[in-house]
Amino acid sequence: MPRILAITGGVGGAKLASGLASVLDPSDLAFAVNTGDDFEHLGLKISPDIDSLTYALAGINNTETGWGREGESWNFLSALKELGGDTWFQLGDKDLALHLHRTTMLNKGKTLTEATEAIAAKLGIRHPIIPMSDQPVSTLVDTCDGELSFQNYFVKEKCEPEVNGFRFQGIESASLQAKLDQWIEGCQGIIICPSNPYVSVDPFLKLNGVKEKLAKIPTIAVSPIIGGRALKGPAAKMMRELGISSSAESVAEHYSAFIDGFVIDEADKESANSIKIPTISTNTVMLTLSDSISLAENCLGFLERFL
Amino acid sequence: MPRILAITGGVGGAKLASGLASVLDPSDLAFAVNTGDDFEHLGLKISPDIDSLTYALAGINNTETGWGREGESWNFLSALKELGGDTWFQLGDKDLALHLHRTTMLNKGKTLTEATEAIAAKLGIRHPIIPMSDQPVSTLVDTCDGELSFQNYFVKEKCEPEVNGFRFQGIESASLQAKLDQWIEGCQGIIICPSNPYVSVDPFLKLNGVKEKLAKIPTIAVSPIIGGRALKGPAAKMMRELGISSSAESVAEHYSAFIDGFVIDEADKESANSIKIPTISTNTVMLTLSDSISLAENCLGFLERFL
Repeated sequence: MPRILAITGGVGGAKLASGLASVLDPSDLAFAVNTGDDFEHLGLKISPDIDSLTYALAGINNTETGWGREGESWNFLSALKELGGDTWFQLGDKDLALHLHRTTMLNKGKTLTEATEAIAAKLGIRHPIIPMSDQPVSTLVDTCDGELSFQNYFVKEKCEPEVNGFRFQGIESASLQAKLDQWIEGCQGIIICPSNPYVSVDPFLKLNGVKEKLAKIPTIAVSPIIGGRALKGPAAKMMRELGISSSAESVAEHYSAFIDGFVIDEADKESANSIKIPTISTNTVMLTLSDSISLAENCLGFLERFL
Repeated sequence: MPRILAITGGVGGAKLASGLASVLDPSDLAFAVNTGDDFEHLGLKISPDIDSLTYALAGINNTETGWGREGESWNFLSALKELGGDTWFQLGDKDLALHLHRTTMLNKGKTLTEATEAIAAKLGIRHPIIPMSDQPVSTLVDTCDGELSFQNYFVKEKCEPEVNGFRFQGIESASLQAKLDQWIEGCQGIIICPSNPYVSVDPFLKLNGVKEKLAKIPTIAVSPIIGGRALKGPAAKMMRELGISSSAESVAEHYSAFIDGFVIDEADKESANSIKIPTISTNTVMLTLSDSISLAENCLGFLERFL
């Protein structure tokens, strides 16, 4: 098997990640995870994308809500509400344990990478989950209501304000995590999972030197846009507001400088011809782990063409 | 009704406090609470004695365990255990909300008094709960295993190491909370609740100037020792280890310099004669709120003698 790096953001990415982890050994697959959504809330250091992937790979993600942990309870949050605390960000009782434990480790001087590794190990995850950087990068959303931190935009404002653009605070001084740099050096292929191109994948791509590294390695991307819509999250709405057609073609165009192949859903089959990059169409809607495994296998088969 | 200050520590004190709060108006009764047990754990600022009183006065204390909140759940702690976090201190999901909310307020610059007031108001508590001081005081227990922080001794070591003495770190530079000072100025009587004299009441008494202030005001104390034993907690064990007879007489002796009257349990009736301070015996075992109210009424009746 070739050695693969998968780049993931939120929940859609985590679904393909689960499929890839089912077919590739931990020595052949690592994950680079967006940290632009990370934020501090009630003194807790929260890394939503790392957590989505961690819960998915540990098999303890909540498949009904699409976020958080399975079998979650909300007694902390209801008691906090009673006390007049800030409850706009949903913190389940079990999820809170992860945030508090990570915060404790970070406050003791561990890096985000070390904290992520320690948590993953305890949950029995064997594939490396590597934050894109140990230096803070904050995704800021420029909206009609002014610049909002990502979680304010995403959770508090429910993605309602119209988007004009994005800024990744700290990106110039953040370095690609050294383990990721090493992994990229030795990897044969890269898969960009179906995550939001603008807020989940771009922070990673905009880290110093990353695009140049990717351009040298066979890379494919999976479209998060299906039939003009995102299955989850604001990607399609953002594209329309940015004046970009919300289509798989637009996603291919966004990545065109450094990808070798593109994967679209079979619903978009007809647009394959209008995409200038080699493109396959397949089922990209992952309702079950079996769907994720099929898509993972199709992606790996497609990627082989470019090795 | 006279204006009363009640001095309380842990759970025994909180029981009498509930009785007093049932018979006296909020304008006639305030509570001075020990903060020597306060500590920081997992980044949370925890005030066990303030919390015991807060939960008791709000009527949401767990009467079965004798500590914590009623209807508590433990999903946070079990998830933290799974992640390898520190779980020696029992943090229920609802209780955690209070600690995190207080910590957020303190980190934003509020005083412990302000944070305590805000929480009490949200829980519908009308009687003032006032921390003995806004400056940190830490009770340290000198044991055969060396000096231990109070929670380490009390929770982690389950009060097992033999006690040689106590030290209240920070006591010299801590001031009596200004609102307490004011309340004491205008109060007619003081009741020392049946809390541990050495670790729950002494920190308050050892604050600069407090004993002198108390000596000028009619003050009674209720013995936490009944028939040579403490109903809860390590008071009797500590007394034996310190070479003090674990009796109500010893408690009276401990407070003798500034109390006017002493209340013992009817089980100790016979020892009333050997106590040099005016003493009454009554039921001091508070199994129900009705028991707490009876004891409160008896204490207030007794205190009237000294006004």
